[in-house]
Amino acid sequence: MKRSRSIVLLSGGIDSTTAFYQALDEVKVAMAISFDYGQRHKKELEFASNTTRRENVPHEIIDITSIGRLLQGSALSDRHVEVPDGHYSDETMKATIVPNRNTIMLSTAVGVAIGIGASQVWAAMHAGDHPIYPDCRPEFIDKLNELIPIATESAVVVVTPFIDITKQEIIRKGFRLGVDFSATWSCYKGGDIHCGRCGTCVERAEAFFLAGVRDPTQYEDKEYWKRVTQ
Amino acid sequence: MKRSRSIVLLSGGIDSTTAFYQALDEVKVAMAISFDYGQRHKKELEFASNTTRRENVPHEIIDITSIGRLLQGSALSDRHVEVPDGHYSDETMKATIVPNRNTIMLSTAVGVAIGIGASQVWAAMHAGDHPIYPDCRPEFIDKLNELIPIATESAVVVVTPFIDITKQEIIRKGFRLGVDFSATWSCYKGGDIHCGRCGTCVERAEAFFLAGVRDPTQYEDKEYWKRVTQ
Repeated sequence: MKRSRSIVLLSGGIDSTTAFYQALDEVKVAMAISFDYGQRHKKELEFASNTTRRENVPHEIIDITSIGRLLQGSALSDRHVEVPDGHYSDETMKATIVPNRNTIMLSTAVGVAIGIGASQVWAAMHAGDHPIYPDCRPEFIDKLNELIPIATESAVVVVTPFIDITKQEIIRKGFRLGVDFSATWSCYKGGDIHCGRCGTCVERAEAFFLAGVRDPTQYEDKEYWKRVTQ
Repeated sequence: MKRSRSIVLLSGGIDSTTAFYQALDEVKVAMAISFDYGQRHKKELEFASNTTRRENVPHEIIDITSIGRLLQGSALSDRHVEVPDGHYSDETMKATIVPNRNTIMLSTAVGVAIGIGASQVWAAMHAGDHPIYPDCRPEFIDKLNELIPIATESAVVVVTPFIDITKQEIIRKGFRLGVDFSATWSCYKGGDIHCGRCGTCVERAEAFFLAGVRDPTQYEDKEYWKRVTQ
């Protein structure tokens, strides 16, 4: 069976790391790509590097800090905006929107895919991302997949294996694939260990609980997630 | 009359410089953006800077060399590929395609527009670009304008004033707007003066001739364009 040559977008978190292992299982992973957009949580990039090194897959960290600096208004890239504590699906999490981030990252990955002759770009957005991030929704991916052949005359496709499932289902999938979740990083704040209070830490802790999978993560505030989730 | 806050993509060439002056005439230009994608012809960036300085418009050069390095296979960004001589519409000009370049640049500009509260992104692709560059065609811009609200929940629109006209018509427009064409740069090779032989130099010289506007450009090979155009 011929396996498609693919690129995986790997942030170093649970979702993209699980997508990376699923891709290793199903296709030929030609390269993993991470983006340095000036995020506070650079730690995730180290986790992405470690994962690719362990699996012997070429890894490129694309420096788009020059773009990130201009994408004002997001707590993830603008140091004047506070990273909010709380639940991932709260209105306050809108502060973590980096405008048009996924269009920029996915278009770049598509360009790289054409350059290296790959036909797929894997990205790990999931159902839990939809309420807050418009560029994580299925209608966004569908429209982007309409744009790519028009923009490039290529047959590169963006593949989103998790777009209809939740984070806890991703964790179950990852568990079955043997993903070492302690080798993934979520926290937006970028301390030594996960803070346990920012939106993505809360989402992480809750998802392990809902998945019924042991959470190997060390959190500064281990019980916070229970107080903000119902 | 309320003028839309706009961003203009400014490469420093004839087309985008003319679009910049048309935008100054018609809207509120909040910022001009240029991209350093590792092109050989960095000179165009100096020309863009000089133009914005003269008009007192904020100018950002966004460094995407980290992306350009990975977009292999184009003569414009890959130093192992020769910049071809000849006519702009020749098959050989396909060597100058940077895969998905305009999706990357326009998505970035849209993100920046959202960040600074602008509602338009002006880009100067024109009818002569269509045969070679798929991401310069009207159907690309239409599809991208469908994608933006889905990706961002914003009302930012990509405006392409020249998409249905030719370069000679742009030159006539620029002439009427008082554009100083000697303050624009086209050559892909990036020497001290325009080479006169690469696709964009040939296109430039021919377009001035067809427009009936005096060409103020110094070319190394002044007559070459006549030999390759009919």
